[in-house]
Formats: sequence, C-alpha cells, structure tokens
Amino acid sequence: VTSRLFTFVGGETGPWRVESARAVLGAPLSFVTHLDVVPGAVRIPPPEAAWLLRGVTSNERYVTRREKEVLAARQPATGRPEAVCAALILLRKSAAWWSLTQDERRSIFEERSRHIQIGLEALPAVARRLHHCRDLGDAEPFDFLTWFEFAPTDAGIFDALTEQLRASEEWTFVDRETEIRLVRDRVVG
Amino acid sequence: VTSRLFTFVGGETGPWRVESARAVLGAPLSFVTHLDVVPGAVRIPPPEAAWLLRGVTSNERYVTRREKEVLAARQPATGRPEAVCAALILLRKSAAWWSLTQDERRSIFEERSRHIQIGLEALPAVARRLHHCRDLGDAEPFDFLTWFEFAPTDAGIFDALTEQLRASEEWTFVDRETEIRLVRDRVVG
Repeated sequence: VTSRLFTFVGGETGPWRVESARAVLGAPLSFVTHLDVVPGAVRIPPPEAAWLLRGVTSNERYVTRREKEVLAARQPATGRPEAVCAALILLRKSAAWWSLTQDERRSIFEERSRHIQIGLEALPAVARRLHHCRDLGDAEPFDFLTWFEFAPTDAGIFDALTEQLRASEEWTFVDRETEIRLVRDRVVG
Repeated sequence: VTSRLFTFVGGETGPWRVESARAVLGAPLSFVTHLDVVPGAVRIPPPEAAWLLRGVTSNERYVTRREKEVLAARQPATGRPEAVCAALILLRKSAAWWSLTQDERRSIFEERSRHIQIGLEALPAVARRLHHCRDLGDAEPFDFLTWFEFAPTDAGIFDALTEQLRASEEWTFVDRETEIRLVRDRVVG
C-alpha cells in the first residue's frame, strides 16, 4: 500500500533547493533553503527543520467522470527526469468558502472560475499532486498543499496557470497563500 | 475556537455505558464497557483504554443549499438532557466508492439511496454529528464515525433510520461497519 500522506520538510537539507519563496497573501512561512518531500509521517524531524507540513491525497471533490477521464489521459506522473523545476503552493480558503454547499462550490470552482479547464491547458507539461490538510485535525495552517513539477522550458506554462487561477472568482475565497519555487539539486530516491 | 476534532475513547471509564456492540460487517472492535467522547486530541490515553478513534467534523459533501436549510431548521443539538441514549456507528467504504466522481457519489447517495430524505425522517428526534477519518492520515480503520443521541422513547426512530440506510444502494459500498449502543450513566461535563 502506497502512502496517501506526505510530509514536506522545510530546512537546510533535501533534494529540492529553494529558488524563491513568496507570501502571495497572508503570513509568510519561515524561509528555508531546501525542501524534502517524504511519503508518510515524519516522527522525528531533522534537527535543522524549520517547518513540517503534512497533507493527504484523497478522492476528487469536483470533477465529473468526463473531466476525470480527460485529465487522466493527459496528466503526467511526478518524477520525470526532465522535470527539475517544482513549485509548492500552500493555500487556505476562508470560512465563507467552507460554509458553501457542494453544488455552490462546484459552480464557483468550474462553471465560473474554469479551474479544471485552466489546469488542462498546463497538461502534459506540468505534473501536479494535490494534498488535503483541512481534515487532518485542528492545527493545520493550510487547507491544501499542491505540488507541481515541470521542465525549465515549461516554467512559463506554470506561471500562466497560477496567474489565471489567481484572477478567478474562486481565488476571492483564498485567505492565505504562499508559493515556493524549487530546483532539483540531485536525483530523488 | 471550538475543536473540529473529536476522540472517542473505548475502555472502562467515561459517561457513556455500552449497552451493546455489534460488528454489522467486517472485523469487530475489542469490546469495552464505557465510552468517553473528548473534544480535541487525546495525547495520553487512559491506561485502561482499549481503543481510540478520531474524527473531524467538516464541510458538507453532498447536500444542496435547499437540503442544508431544511436540515438546519429541523436538527437538534447534541447534549439534550432527555437524550440519554446514544449510538456510535463506525463505517468504512470500499475503494470502489472512493474512485467514483463527486456527481456519481451524489447520485448514489441521494437520488438513488435517499440518504438525506431518510435522515430527515428521524428529525428532530435524533441528534447527529458526523466525523470524517479517511483524510486523517494512513492508519485509520474507518472512514466515518457518526454519533447519534436520542431519548429512550425515540429508539425505534433510530432503528428505522439505520434499517433503511443499510438496505440502500449506498450501503453496498460499505465494507466495514460496527454499531455501538450506549446509555448515559451520568451528566456529561
């Protein structure tokens, strides 16, 4: 059984070197130079770790069957040798978002913000893995951690993706966002 | 801020006395005589605890705005003095369920299984609080813990509720279920 839980360890070690970190909205995280992405829980953090963020991959919340099939046919796996650039986007949504019903959230997410369609435009260049944190317990600083991987020549596709999403109605419900850009220093694993 | 996380501690102490425990489907839990329901995490379990189960209340996954309003108008709070009977239903759903898309799950949940309508028939007699476990991490034995409270004279309404749900198409996706029935020995808090 592969782990659905992943731990992102920010510190001074790890295969991913931080190129930039930017608090798009809300409080920043402590600055770190490196990141490690660990499947499963980290019981004993490395001594120099500044922060640990956890999230679990989960069932899809918004896509329809047709959308899921189109996505599955186009989306690449993580770990491609040429995908030496990565981004970690940390996101929290407002209480107003979470008090909406499913049909209201879907309507904002896709019919009005085109989140899935915008995401499709970045495929197959950008690999993506979404981690949920909101239901981990009481003490999580973010609701979602999204991990992206792409080749240096596709960085513009990733930038266009985030620019479009940040201009959407859905993003008016985001109340904390941090973007960390990374480059792979060495082969993972 | 009130906790969304709750810990259910099965052992020999706690305000709720176990009247019966039944593995409806799949492996049973160790039998305990009492249950405590603790808001938040339990760092140090009582020495006689046989098991701890954790879950978080969360945003609604299936109701529409109209259904949410009807439910909100009818559902009672937990902790009513006359509601000295309780039930804890522990549920896990199959991988097949979780691989369905949202619209497919909604269709089975309500259009074909009438989960919300069946639940409405038990209101305002039966108070209910749903806790999610599936996204707590990797090691949870159940996906949901549902807590119910009702007066002794309304036990038949609770029985009718579970009987109807267990006969539904939705329940063909349940692959583990345990029902624990309880009586309040003393006033909580």
